[in-house]
Amino acid sequence: MPEKQIEVWIEFGSPYTHIAVQTIEDKAKNAGLEVAWRPFLIGAIFQLQGYTDTPVNLFKPKGNYMWRDMVRQCQSLNIPYKKPTIFPINGITAARITTAADDQPWQGNFIRETFMSYFFHDQDITNPAILAEALGKAGCTDIEAALNTATLPEVKNKLKARTEEAINRGIFGAPSFFVGDELFWGSDRIEQAIAFAKS
Amino acid sequence: MPEKQIEVWIEFGSPYTHIAVQTIEDKAKNAGLEVAWRPFLIGAIFQLQGYTDTPVNLFKPKGNYMWRDMVRQCQSLNIPYKKPTIFPINGITAARITTAADDQPWQGNFIRETFMSYFFHDQDITNPAILAEALGKAGCTDIEAALNTATLPEVKNKLKARTEEAINRGIFGAPSFFVGDELFWGSDRIEQAIAFAKS
Repeated sequence: MPEKQIEVWIEFGSPYTHIAVQTIEDKAKNAGLEVAWRPFLIGAIFQLQGYTDTPVNLFKPKGNYMWRDMVRQCQSLNIPYKKPTIFPINGITAARITTAADDQPWQGNFIRETFMSYFFHDQDITNPAILAEALGKAGCTDIEAALNTATLPEVKNKLKARTEEAINRGIFGAPSFFVGDELFWGSDRIEQAIAFAKS
Repeated sequence: MPEKQIEVWIEFGSPYTHIAVQTIEDKAKNAGLEVAWRPFLIGAIFQLQGYTDTPVNLFKPKGNYMWRDMVRQCQSLNIPYKKPTIFPINGITAARITTAADDQPWQGNFIRETFMSYFFHDQDITNPAILAEALGKAGCTDIEAALNTATLPEVKNKLKARTEEAINRGIFGAPSFFVGDELFWGSDRIEQAIAFAKS
């Protein structure tokens, strides 16, 4: 019998996705669930909503609140966090590397390391050297090959298709979770999504 | 020594405010906190954000999700809920009655009853007869006088000032909570707000 799955839809530039990424795999495993990582590009969805920038920057009070809330949430959950200097950031290279790594044992570790690079060590994750470091820490043994996947047309197309799938299935923000066709949005819905999967 | 306070900023047309309203007073009391009800008008803030309608209606996937999430959240919290037929609704009369009732023992009950009227019994809370019923259930003994407060210039001005205060203090959505100058947003931040007040 195949293990029950929770799809975790992530955007590398999304603050609240940092919280989900650093916590969900342990919680899912404890519940007997398999995590299926689904990187996508939130920018395409923000454009559909008519945003010209990340909503965090467009309406200052909401942005200010989110940064304060991130500090509080990460403190209470013991997640290392520091507000990045560069924001927003283009996570497309990290997303492509992850998309190409569905069969790699280091995929989850790479995601966590890359979010730590950006949301704790304040590093520029558009820089391949930073991603190479994250790949090494994650246990990838052929870093050059992994970085190279980001340039392959089939990987670019797979990520595009994933983003289209996100739109077609009703995703409008990150992080999002699917259990079957049931959608959950936001790092504060992880427990509900896992409970739903178990029920 | 005055009791520690949690300000609960509410909008009568806001779905997630229903969750806060039906649950927060018991939780606050258990924590030794006094609830200060702060009705305001979210429409003025949505206009500042450039919205021409409630964001729930402007971007369909987000709206669809919210209605589904409301069902799940209310089920898991045992809060009576039914999606209202009329949405959005103008909560200004209910907000004015509440604003005028800061010293009335029935204020909290009236808020809860009115949210039940709209978000469970699917009633039109712009109708004074519906508000009169809520006032009666809440224990108000002079219903006519309470309804009449909604027409008084000083009450209208007090509600306007409250909405301006909300904007000036960085509120951008409902429900919101202030503990001193610390802002919390959303029905899923009630526990954090109370924990912060106790710390």
